[in-house]
Order: sequence, then structure tokens, then C-alpha cells
Amino acid sequence: MVSKNSKRARLTYKDAGVDVAANDRMVKRIRHAVAATCDDRVLNGHNAFAGLFRLDYPGTLLRRNYRDPVLVAGTDGVGSKLLLGLQYGRLGDLGVDLVAMSVNDVLTTGAEPLFFLDYVACNKLIPAQVAEIVEGVARGCRLADCSLLGGETAELPDLYAKRHFDLAGFCVGVVERRRLIDGGRVEPGDAVIGLASNGIHSNGYALVRKLLARTGHRKKLSAKLGEPLEDAILRPTRIYVPSIRALLGRYRRKRVVRAMAHVTGGGLPGNLPRVIPGDCDVVIQRKSWPLPPIFQGLQRLGVARSEMYRVFNMGIGFVLVVRPTFARSIVRRLNRLGESAYRIGTIRLGSGKLRWA
Amino acid sequence: MVSKNSKRARLTYKDAGVDVAANDRMVKRIRHAVAATCDDRVLNGHNAFAGLFRLDYPGTLLRRNYRDPVLVAGTDGVGSKLLLGLQYGRLGDLGVDLVAMSVNDVLTTGAEPLFFLDYVACNKLIPAQVAEIVEGVARGCRLADCSLLGGETAELPDLYAKRHFDLAGFCVGVVERRRLIDGGRVEPGDAVIGLASNGIHSNGYALVRKLLARTGHRKKLSAKLGEPLEDAILRPTRIYVPSIRALLGRYRRKRVVRAMAHVTGGGLPGNLPRVIPGDCDVVIQRKSWPLPPIFQGLQRLGVARSEMYRVFNMGIGFVLVVRPTFARSIVRRLNRLGESAYRIGTIRLGSGKLRWA
Repeated sequence: MVSKNSKRARLTYKDAGVDVAANDRMVKRIRHAVAATCDDRVLNGHNAFAGLFRLDYPGTLLRRNYRDPVLVAGTDGVGSKLLLGLQYGRLGDLGVDLVAMSVNDVLTTGAEPLFFLDYVACNKLIPAQVAEIVEGVARGCRLADCSLLGGETAELPDLYAKRHFDLAGFCVGVVERRRLIDGGRVEPGDAVIGLASNGIHSNGYALVRKLLARTGHRKKLSAKLGEPLEDAILRPTRIYVPSIRALLGRYRRKRVVRAMAHVTGGGLPGNLPRVIPGDCDVVIQRKSWPLPPIFQGLQRLGVARSEMYRVFNMGIGFVLVVRPTFARSIVRRLNRLGESAYRIGTIRLGSGKLRWA
Repeated sequence: MVSKNSKRARLTYKDAGVDVAANDRMVKRIRHAVAATCDDRVLNGHNAFAGLFRLDYPGTLLRRNYRDPVLVAGTDGVGSKLLLGLQYGRLGDLGVDLVAMSVNDVLTTGAEPLFFLDYVACNKLIPAQVAEIVEGVARGCRLADCSLLGGETAELPDLYAKRHFDLAGFCVGVVERRRLIDGGRVEPGDAVIGLASNGIHSNGYALVRKLLARTGHRKKLSAKLGEPLEDAILRPTRIYVPSIRALLGRYRRKRVVRAMAHVTGGGLPGNLPRVIPGDCDVVIQRKSWPLPPIFQGLQRLGVARSEMYRVFNMGIGFVLVVRPTFARSIVRRLNRLGESAYRIGTIRLGSGKLRWA
């Protein structure tokens, strides 16, 4: 009969009211996973109300010294994918999705993601459930080279249905001001490079769920996928941080990357125009990359092609606009860094729109 | 039939799928309120995926130059207070609560809150509803001197009931490393100063709602309050940023403040021990500050006194542990800064617990 909020601040957790024991069990389970995401820039001060992260760092291994640091922040959830993840019991994967959605956004500025915080709201704090989610968040943070600096677990039995929960994620990164990538210098003639997605990522699931709910569709979609349906549908969103950071480190002085976009809700047409100047169009060749089987399958269930491209990433999860003379070497380098990179288009004079070639 | 996530990044909003029009209406309504929170450190770059905040700033008005900056981050929601705010149609006030919960946490380290991001998840994006919430968030940000750098609105019709929504907030601040307040230097003999809360703030509402649900309780509680019940129950959490920042600025070189605590879930016993060393106790005089009528009223509905103190702030919303020789001048200064400050206790040798005197 007391307050039902429980606060996680790094490894210290606030009194969770009635559920102190449940919260303690959960915290115990996640402690190791959280600690594994933290480097020496995370300060273990006595203060338990907030997470502390040292921006400049003198130590040899993590030496940092920003001259004119710009902090970059993003927030996102995982949308309706959450309900499918819950249905198939893949809560950890949703944690990775949560991190991916925010860190890939922050990455588009050229920033180094520094830390992440999660908010988990649920009907009832089931330690195993929350721990599985937070362990997934920690896994995502390791993939994105950022520290899980804090989090909050809130029990709201009158807001969420039994076993239901929601997730929100927050990421902060930093970029040296003169290296900030904001699309302002994009010019006609620039090359557009797409990086393969590894599935549906975390957008379009309202449509996916509707399609799967119809009789026979599940079976129809499963055919020709080459993997179990759940794997194809619930694979966590790819995190592009290590390869993009490595690429930017390589071309540090040349400033060859002029804009980047994370392909989320709205697909390529909804996201690419957001980072090009108003007097340019981005022209994309639809046949320049392979369309993954999952999107072919979803389209075959009765979705118009134009609708498919407006809802899903269609195989391209992250996009770079680069100086044309460097396009080939960048594609080669990204492939060597473990991405599947394709030259998918060109910047032309225009009016801020995406055109299909 | 498309993705139902909509992304707000500063003033730029991502394609909201089916609800582009609703989202546009909402964005139009909040634009002015959001802009009013932003100072020149917020960069209006072309990048629309993340918010950009310049840490160091050369301009005369906002001159900043951190030598060894420590970033401080906190996240929180508003708990079950949300359901009462919804019931009484006070959505804007919930936005202020959301900001208060995170900025007061960040403030305990001595940090200057820099920016805030919000996550709003709802059954359906009703522009007037979301705009009212975000306008409240902007109001809270102005009270806390921080910029509303970004936000996300997610429509999740299968997760939230009709008209229901949830809120998560995220705040980042910065503190010079050698001015970090973390309780590490707290000593026996230090004075404990309490700042008045302005009501229940945002914790204990599971209990409040349960009490109000019983027949006759609403009327019984309303008597002797001196204000309408809704005002007493839903007044937004006090934001202590301006007065505490002014105080710390005044004692800049002397480091007189050794620890600070934000009194949230768990009340004084749940929060004060979190910021004192393990070989100290914090001893509190219960009669040293006036108990506000709302808590007297709630207790009279049949809650044990000890339970009351474990659930509610009981009139003290923020606490400072200071060097004893400065206690009187600090209390005086805080009162002049608009707070109601009381000397409420002392630090003694002990074992990391709160004791009542």
C-alpha cells in the first residue's frame, strides 16, 4: 500500500515500496550485465540520484579532450514490435532494439554515443521479465560502445494490462563541433550509400501485426524465408555505431561524409529528405540493392509496393551521403568493416524530395 | 495501416504515418512553447534525428567553459499521479511533474540541468491532449532553466486503453568535476536543511488513489484543506533548480554543501541514507517543520504515521547536508531565494541509517 515506483540509478536502486524484494532480485540479476557496459568514464560517486559520466578523460586508454563539444541526444521506443516480442517471449531482443533506435539516431550527427538510460513501465515488476529486458539493453549498449548509465522501473498496475509493459530509451553522444554532420554541405552530385538492414528493424509493426492476424498469412509468409518466421520478424535492429565510427575515424580530416540518415518510420522517403538541403533531391535506384525475402513476403500478402516503401526500410537501414570521389573507397571500407554497403543513389538539384529512378 | 510511431526532434517531426495531420496540428501548437525553452546553446542544425546542445559557449551572455565536465543524467516518470491528472484533466501539470522528477534528481549532484527530452506513449495521438502535456513539459523546463531538446510521441493502440498514455522524462546536466556534490565528504556534526515541498509531489499516488476510492473519504479529506481537493492533490512538484543553483553560485569556492537529496518514493527514510557515508546516521527532528494539511488529512483517513513517513515527503521535498557553521546563513539565503527552509536535523556517527529524534 505504498508508492510503487522503483528507481534504478546505475547500480543503486531506490526503495521500491512493496516490491523491495522483487526489485532487489532484479537488480542482483542485472548488476553484472550493467557493469560490463561501463568504462572508466562512468564515475561511481556516492550520489545515488543520477548517473555520472566524465566527458573529458586524461587516462591513456580512453583519452578524450573535446575542444568545443556538442552534446547530441535522442529518445525513442520500440513501438508495436513490443507486443510481438512479448507474444514470442523475446524480451531481451527488444532491449537491443530499444538501444538501436536511439543510438543510430544520435550516430547520424557523427557523434560518439556516450551513455544510455532506459525507462521500463510495467503492470507488475516480475524480476525475471525486467531483468531479461535490461540484460538486452546492456547487450545493445555493448554493441553500441556506450554505457548503461541508469534506468527507471515503474509499476503502474492500473495503466498497463497484465504482463504488459512499455519501454523508452534515451541516448546522449558527443561530437566535436567542427566535425558535426548535419547535411548542410550536401551538394548535387554527391553519392548516396545504403547499408543493409538485418530485417524489419523497429518500424512498421502495426502493419506487420495486422497482416499476421489474418488466416493463413502466417504460413504463407513463413514459406521461402529460409529461417523461422519469429527470427525474421523479431531479429533486433542492427546497430551501425562501430562501423560508422571506424569509417569517420579513417576520414577524419577530409570530411567526406556530408549527411547520414537512420531509416525508421516512413522508410527511405520519410527519412532521407530530412537531412538534405531544400534545393536538392535525393534520387534512389530501387534495383541497386537486394530486396530481403521478408519484405517480398509481406508485399505478397497484399500490400501495394509504394506503401511497402513508405512503411518499411526495405533492406536499407542506414544511409550516408558522401563526396562522389570517395564513394567507391567508402563502400569498400564499409564492406570490410562488416556492413553490406551499396551505392543506391545520387543527389540532384531539386526541392527537398526523394525521387525513384 | 502504416507505422504509427511519430518522432519529435526539437522542432522537426518525423512522418507519423496515418496521423501526419494530427501530428502536424500538435507540432504547430507546441512550437512556440518549445522554442521559448531554448537558449543559444541549442543548435538548429539541419540534422533532424537528434537534438544538438553546445556544452561550452563563448558568447558573452551564456559564457561557459568546463575544464573537466561531468555529465549527469537522470530519468523518471510520474507514476500513478498520471491517472489522477487524467481524471481531473490536468495534463499540463503532469508535464511539469515529469520535468521536476528528473531535474531535481540531477540537481542533487550540484549540476546545472542543460536539457530535457520527453517520451509520450498513448492510445491515439489526440493533438490537443499531447500538446497540453508538452506545453506543461516546456513550462517545467523554463522553471528549471533547461532546454526542451527533443521528444518522441508513440501511438500504441493495443498497449494503452482509450485516452490512456504514459510519460517518461530524461534530463542531462553538467557539473565541473571538482564541484561535484556526492555526499562523500559528509561528516558527523553536519547540519541537515530541509526545503518545503508544495504538496504530495509525484510519489505515493498508489496509496492516494486507494484512499480516495473509499466512500466518504473524498469529502473528509476536502475539509480543512483551505483549497480545492484537486489543487492540493495535483499541484505540480516543486522545481528547486533556480534557488539551489543560486545558492551554490554564492558559496562557489567554499564547498559548504556536502550532499543533497531529492525526497521521492520512500520519503525521507528512503532517500536521505542514499547520500550519506556508511559510518554516519542522519538524525531528523520530526517537529522541526510544519506538517502540511494534506498529509494530516491523508493520515486521518487511516494510515499509520510511520507508513506516512515511508511513503510521502511529509512537507520536505529537497534536503541539503551542509557544514554546520554555514547552516544559519544558508537557511536565511534559501528563504530569501523564495524557499521555505528549515534546519531539520544533524549528521551523527552511525551505520548509514535515518533515525528520528
